[in-house]
Amino acid sequence: MIKVGIAGASGYTGVELVKLISNHPKARLETITSSSYKGKPLTDIFPSMRGFESLICEDLDAQALSTRVDLMFLALPHKVSMSYAAPLIEQGIRVIDLSADFRFNNPDTYEKAYQTHTNTDLLAESVYGLSEIYRDQIKSARIVGNPGCYPTTILLALLPLIREKLIEPTGIISDSKSGVSGAGRSLSLAAHYCEANESFTPYKIGNHRHTPEIEEILSIHSGKEIKITFVPHLVPVTRGMVSTIYGQAAKSVCLKDIRQAYRKWYKGEPFVRLLPDKSFPAMSHVRGTNCCDIGCHFDADTGRIILVSAIDNLLKGAAGQAVQNMNIMFGLVDEIGLNYVQTPL
Amino acid sequence: MIKVGIAGASGYTGVELVKLISNHPKARLETITSSSYKGKPLTDIFPSMRGFESLICEDLDAQALSTRVDLMFLALPHKVSMSYAAPLIEQGIRVIDLSADFRFNNPDTYEKAYQTHTNTDLLAESVYGLSEIYRDQIKSARIVGNPGCYPTTILLALLPLIREKLIEPTGIISDSKSGVSGAGRSLSLAAHYCEANESFTPYKIGNHRHTPEIEEILSIHSGKEIKITFVPHLVPVTRGMVSTIYGQAAKSVCLKDIRQAYRKWYKGEPFVRLLPDKSFPAMSHVRGTNCCDIGCHFDADTGRIILVSAIDNLLKGAAGQAVQNMNIMFGLVDEIGLNYVQTPL
Amino acid sequence: MIKVGIAGASGYTGVELVKLISNHPKARLETITSSSYKGKPLTDIFPSMRGFESLICEDLDAQALSTRVDLMFLALPHKVSMSYAAPLIEQGIRVIDLSADFRFNNPDTYEKAYQTHTNTDLLAESVYGLSEIYRDQIKSARIVGNPGCYPTTILLALLPLIREKLIEPTGIISDSKSGVSGAGRSLSLAAHYCEANESFTPYKIGNHRHTPEIEEILSIHSGKEIKITFVPHLVPVTRGMVSTIYGQAAKSVCLKDIRQAYRKWYKGEPFVRLLPDKSFPAMSHVRGTNCCDIGCHFDADTGRIILVSAIDNLLKGAAGQAVQNMNIMFGLVDEIGLNYVQTPL
Amino acid sequence: MIKVGIAGASGYTGVELVKLISNHPKARLETITSSSYKGKPLTDIFPSMRGFESLICEDLDAQALSTRVDLMFLALPHKVSMSYAAPLIEQGIRVIDLSADFRFNNPDTYEKAYQTHTNTDLLAESVYGLSEIYRDQIKSARIVGNPGCYPTTILLALLPLIREKLIEPTGIISDSKSGVSGAGRSLSLAAHYCEANESFTPYKIGNHRHTPEIEEILSIHSGKEIKITFVPHLVPVTRGMVSTIYGQAAKSVCLKDIRQAYRKWYKGEPFVRLLPDKSFPAMSHVRGTNCCDIGCHFDADTGRIILVSAIDNLLKGAAGQAVQNMNIMFGLVDEIGLNYVQTPL
Repeated sequence: MIKVGIAGASGYTGVELVKLISNHPKARLETITSSSYKGKPLTDIFPSMRGFESLICEDLDAQALSTRVDLMFLALPHKVSMSYAAPLIEQGIRVIDLSADFRFNNPDTYEKAYQTHTNTDLLAESVYGLSEIYRDQIKSARIVGNPGCYPTTILLALLPLIREKLIEPTGIISDSKSGVSGAGRSLSLAAHYCEANESFTPYKIGNHRHTPEIEEILSIHSGKEIKITFVPHLVPVTRGMVSTIYGQAAKSVCLKDIRQAYRKWYKGEPFVRLLPDKSFPAMSHVRGTNCCDIGCHFDADTGRIILVSAIDNLLKGAAGQAVQNMNIMFGLVDEIGLNYVQTPL
Repeated sequence: MIKVGIAGASGYTGVELVKLISNHPKARLETITSSSYKGKPLTDIFPSMRGFESLICEDLDAQALSTRVDLMFLALPHKVSMSYAAPLIEQGIRVIDLSADFRFNNPDTYEKAYQTHTNTDLLAESVYGLSEIYRDQIKSARIVGNPGCYPTTILLALLPLIREKLIEPTGIISDSKSGVSGAGRSLSLAAHYCEANESFTPYKIGNHRHTPEIEEILSIHSGKEIKITFVPHLVPVTRGMVSTIYGQAAKSVCLKDIRQAYRKWYKGEPFVRLLPDKSFPAMSHVRGTNCCDIGCHFDADTGRIILVSAIDNLLKGAAGQAVQNMNIMFGLVDEIGLNYVQTPL
Repeated sequence: MIKVGIAGASGYTGVELVKLISNHPKARLETITSSSYKGKPLTDIFPSMRGFESLICEDLDAQALSTRVDLMFLALPHKVSMSYAAPLIEQGIRVIDLSADFRFNNPDTYEKAYQTHTNTDLLAESVYGLSEIYRDQIKSARIVGNPGCYPTTILLALLPLIREKLIEPTGIISDSKSGVSGAGRSLSLAAHYCEANESFTPYKIGNHRHTPEIEEILSIHSGKEIKITFVPHLVPVTRGMVSTIYGQAAKSVCLKDIRQAYRKWYKGEPFVRLLPDKSFPAMSHVRGTNCCDIGCHFDADTGRIILVSAIDNLLKGAAGQAVQNMNIMFGLVDEIGLNYVQTPL
Repeated sequence: MIKVGIAGASGYTGVELVKLISNHPKARLETITSSSYKGKPLTDIFPSMRGFESLICEDLDAQALSTRVDLMFLALPHKVSMSYAAPLIEQGIRVIDLSADFRFNNPDTYEKAYQTHTNTDLLAESVYGLSEIYRDQIKSARIVGNPGCYPTTILLALLPLIREKLIEPTGIISDSKSGVSGAGRSLSLAAHYCEANESFTPYKIGNHRHTPEIEEILSIHSGKEIKITFVPHLVPVTRGMVSTIYGQAAKSVCLKDIRQAYRKWYKGEPFVRLLPDKSFPAMSHVRGTNCCDIGCHFDADTGRIILVSAIDNLLKGAAGQAVQNMNIMFGLVDEIGLNYVQTPL
């Protein structure tokens, strides 16, 4: 049994982790923390959990945790994670951080998009937790930087084509759409019901913080610096994310090559589902699953490749992939605790 | 041309008033105020108004307004209205207040449900703005207390039956349902998208502030003190309100009597629509209109009367009825500026 | 391992059953049937199931099933179930029927609300599958008539109070609200997106078919004929059901008695959750769970009891309760395969 | 007073036209037709119209209409319009057709995307009703082919840049998103509530019928054949449409040039609103208006232009633009009957 703690359990990602670990046959939830709800039972915040989980929110105290947990999930805001990770690692606790604080290879890139990084050594050590791509490094990692939700959709769709040199690395566009839970549980006008409902809104055109995260990984895999155009939009649904990605095929590529690349890269992977020809994923197809569904279209006349990639932003885009990474880190098969569709409807 | 000002234009009720007055053929919008957005154009807050309305949010200064406006709508929070109304009245400006501050007859009732009232003289003078029922008093009123949204649905459905002694005044239940805009534009967890979406929530069972407002009016019209059971619920829609009302018929009443009472009381009223037999209103039937739709059912075996009453909470439940009251106060026919369906869909 | 078949797997209740059985540690899904999609894989209908379930829709052939399954779930329309149940029973296959065909005690009541019943012997034998109340009879039943969704919310809230004589059996009202999935997957104008969205609609006032089902069970338990007033409404959410129930307390009852009755009747029951004082359930609290949450309020002045009862209509209101009944029939604890919250959000 | 008839009044576009004409100060609605609801009052289909419109659905009889109407709106399915238009024109009735039947210049293009055209003479005569661009031809047109909703968003955003040679005509992408009302009132699984709700779905990638319509107009204005990549998606809202458009700037273009082009082309146009720098439109900004809002972004490093264009698909995308065209045809200013925001919320 893996002994697990979850920091920031009162957020949407946090409670999703609680739920996954509560149902996980090889993990046991030992502690949850929340600065806003310290001393309160989780069921005060999420009444749906009544009878399923009786833990009380605690303070995060790394020293006290050393004997209690093997692994800590940090579902905390950017910058807050940064300060908690090192003390945990020092206590021998492995860490999966769901903020942006340990996702970057290059501290300058992080600092440009976020803020000063106060632990660049740990950043250097951390592994990017895109499970299907960094499986080997994740196995032995002490700290994993769990990917952003947008990067997960975009990288899983693009990396096989980049690595197989089937797509031009220049000029790629991702027109991406996210459900509102991606904005978290903190109140904001954009997530106020009457503002988000019955609307659809582009935001942060040209300056979303997930852009450098995506570009860094794409650049590493293509061997040269890649810039992409990334435009996120808000969709009036609670959970779900779709990226529609446009690129130019490398010379003499055909649809078969593209499909073959995915088959090669995701062979045996339970959570990447390549859709049949002419099928494309909808948000509802992946809601409640840890899957990333990918559909592809190729227009031979113009050489344009169109990829559609969909995830549940709280699962494969956050808590689900984090648990998948935990499974990898502790020598379990990926599917344990994740091998189901929560809600086909 | 009636010269109009709107205080609190940056809220949902406020902007609805702006829209109605902008389209009104006999009124001209002279000023809008907002404490949170002073100095900013309304279109910064509601970009949909670009090109239709160019006013800048001002401070509310009663003295400066005396020469500029004939009528002021106060779309302000409870208690704030209380302090602004008197200075406006003193300047000869008529006031329609959309808060609860001038709805009550009995100051004690107000104070029990809200807070100390600092201007009970003005409260005593104010007229309850349920247009169809208090038309005569509204005509010459200096100050009108515009009804709450829930009371509007419940009173319009019940008063004819109470007055005609067709329903037992004891034991009435209203199971009411409101869209989220009723909670306004202030941020709250209950109105956070992911909390309200895909849910349906009863709230304030046994202690909603609209209960004494409803009971006071019912008591006045039945000649004795009436208590009702009122349970509000939150529905995941932006606009709309439905009350399903249950009561016991007085002896030997039949459905025909009930329908006849409505016909008598609402004869010639453009905004109360009695539905045909076996038809009941849905929120979508009244959205974007100033109408209150009423459907009725009578079970002869048990003597139970079931009434369903529906409005658009921002129109007949707030801004629409306020404009209807303005029309009445200024000698216009009720329909002017309100005689349309904004969105059949 | 219980060998299970699901008839009507292409409907919303059917696929929910598929999902539950696929995840069930003590059951194995042997066959699914669908008349509309015969020969097609379930994943063509519900792409979310790709990789999780590979069964092909078959014809329902009782004889061929005799060696393959121990239990058949019938998620078929009313009347269709009636003809399939007997041949299955004859083959020694136990049946849980999710239509109304085997819910009634009195065939006349069924026939008045639905149509001629062609197998009244089997109807007489069938057990009403309200798990918490009919546990003992369900254990050995060959055929279970799984309750309607509305009756489940209303009966679980009322029966303890009826049995303990805490509530007057006369004059009870249930104002109930259902998500759109209750209407199934067959196309209809009422379930067309633009008609249901942003609306809220009462329907079938005075003549919903669940009324006699509720009244029959209430009458059995109170020892005299009970009539209730039941008004259902459609809420724009996919899943969820709330009933707000009004009744008159028997003499000298207090809130403590009411709470005590629930504690007594549901002691040890994992799926009925009595909420703390002044707490009431929302649809989101039970979505993705097999729970029925009950909140209660008592107004001592008027003697009125208000109960709020909430379920996920596809789980405790259909497929979840059916699986709970399967567990009971096969000697398993209720929670197996159901002991989780699918989506706290 | 323009005497107006509306064919197909029982559809979503039809009833929107009814509403607009009912409110129009210079037009009078003389007749409505519906094949499915012949003989029924419109209020049976759309109860929101009770009290506002009392017309009964008739048969479409061109001869009988000749003395009754000056203008006929055809809100009919493709192919049906084709057969009704000529007889009306022969009777001296001007026609605005909202189907695709009279949008194309080249009959071959129409026939490839739709079906055989049976009246190519009338097709040759018809004017494409993109009001801002074809204003002069619309004035005197006997028949106007009202644009598709997607083409309206895309063409209004692109044409000024194409005409001013600021954007490369090759390689343009439009990633477009539509509310569900675009699919009309006919039942379909895709528009079934539980399928569309809480999802987001790309559809018809590579073969949507609006593609040739867009390409024909773009080609005419650029003087050479243009191909675009067009990917539509379904958004769970009733009304609204957003296109996010990507293209490559012509050499040495800057953002100022782009903004200048819009100002030049849409000077004095009341219904195209160019947003301030760094502002982009959301569906809620245009809902209930006849406006097309355009926001633009230019990335100097890569030369990429990003345009976001939003409309209410039932107004500027259908009925609103049709009324705007009527105003132009009858010598009225564009704004009459359209100069308001129906619902800021």
